Amino acid sequence: MFITFEGVEGAGKTTAIEAVARHLTSCGEKVCRTREPGGCPLGQQLRSLLLSAQTRLDPLAELHLFLADRAQHVAEVIRPALADGAIVLCDRFTDSTLAYQGFARHLDLDMLRTLNKSATGDLEPDLTLILDLPVQEGLRRVAERRRQTGCTGEGRIDDEQLSFHEAVRKGFLFIAEQAPSRVCLLDAGRPREEVLAACLEAIAAHRPGLGLVQ
Amino acid sequence: MFITFEGVEGAGKTTAIEAVARHLTSCGEKVCRTREPGGCPLGQQLRSLLLSAQTRLDPLAELHLFLADRAQHVAEVIRPALADGAIVLCDRFTDSTLAYQGFARHLDLDMLRTLNKSATGDLEPDLTLILDLPVQEGLRRVAERRRQTGCTGEGRIDDEQLSFHEAVRKGFLFIAEQAPSRVCLLDAGRPREEVLAACLEAIAAHRPGLGLVQ
Repeated sequence: MFITFEGVEGAGKTTAIEAVARHLTSCGEKVCRTREPGGCPLGQQLRSLLLSAQTRLDPLAELHLFLADRAQHVAEVIRPALADGAIVLCDRFTDSTLAYQGFARHLDLDMLRTLNKSATGDLEPDLTLILDLPVQEGLRRVAERRRQTGCTGEGRIDDEQLSFHEAVRKGFLFIAEQAPSRVCLLDAGRPREEVLAACLEAIAAHRPGLGLVQ
Repeated sequence: MFITFEGVEGAGKTTAIEAVARHLTSCGEKVCRTREPGGCPLGQQLRSLLLSAQTRLDPLAELHLFLADRAQHVAEVIRPALADGAIVLCDRFTDSTLAYQGFARHLDLDMLRTLNKSATGDLEPDLTLILDLPVQEGLRRVAERRRQTGCTGEGRIDDEQLSFHEAVRKGFLFIAEQAPSRVCLLDAGRPREEVLAACLEAIAAHRPGLGLVQ
């Protein structure tokens, strides 16, 4: 089973994935937790190019770097893990390309869908959890995290204009509307225990027996 | 004017471009000499990923890295140089994608053409010089150069099987046949002065007055 987690910056994807992974593991499931960009050694090198505030990237160059990461990640990590019977939990996947490169950078959505299909060899998530949050609340959380950790963060995308992040969120809401059988839209503004419970409920609804809180 | 140089490994592209650039500059032309991958700062970082013998790349990941380099290179280097009135001489461009990723790695040619158009924003070379050479002679030259310079070279592609390089050459011959008005196929097995003369002649035939030996 292949589950992707999507959402605007600061929506809490990492925290949710950690909690879901812990829960599924404690239920005896084999879990592979991964992310894009950066889920494989090539991707880690690309991640620093993609997220570094120093890099001024052409939108198409940025797109192809994400796709290179995805093609390698699917071939090297996701497909082998699925073949091995693991539940794959992936932080960002094809929907982020539509939301960021399509809705926010204005690249053609049909082209992006075609490229996503090609780069993944038609691999689609079984379930996508979109953690939804007002953009300003997400950015406030990112700023708070930066302050607490003393880390300036991976700036290039975090530092985009508010309108950029609003367009990303609009993209995710559109995707949730278009693909209701695959995508579950969750309110990420709630306390983290409630968000975790909603994630597990969505997983259990998708595959009964999996993810239920014991 | 945008001129690309293509050919199998060891065909002498770099030497030919240097000589053509020197000649055009001495004729008072503004010349921009560049290459793919690696013609811009992003590309230099990608070049080491792409050519390093340490990297095991999925063919689609490799393709998207080349396209990322190309999109950035066109936006950052080639278009500004052309707008500035320079003659751009580029070592490898879209035809290498067709020959290497299409003919040798067996990715779909129509998809590659579409992606090339997208990554370049439809920018096509005015003239392409394909330096043609039997594959074994080219690889002999590469090995000789490595011995002389003590450099192990940029191994991942040089070190492919003979059949890979034969497929690349077949790709270039096919391209020359399909686009005779843009592409000029030159025998690169001749002494380097003759190859240079043939390059300049092709350039002069394409734009009278340019490239003629004084």
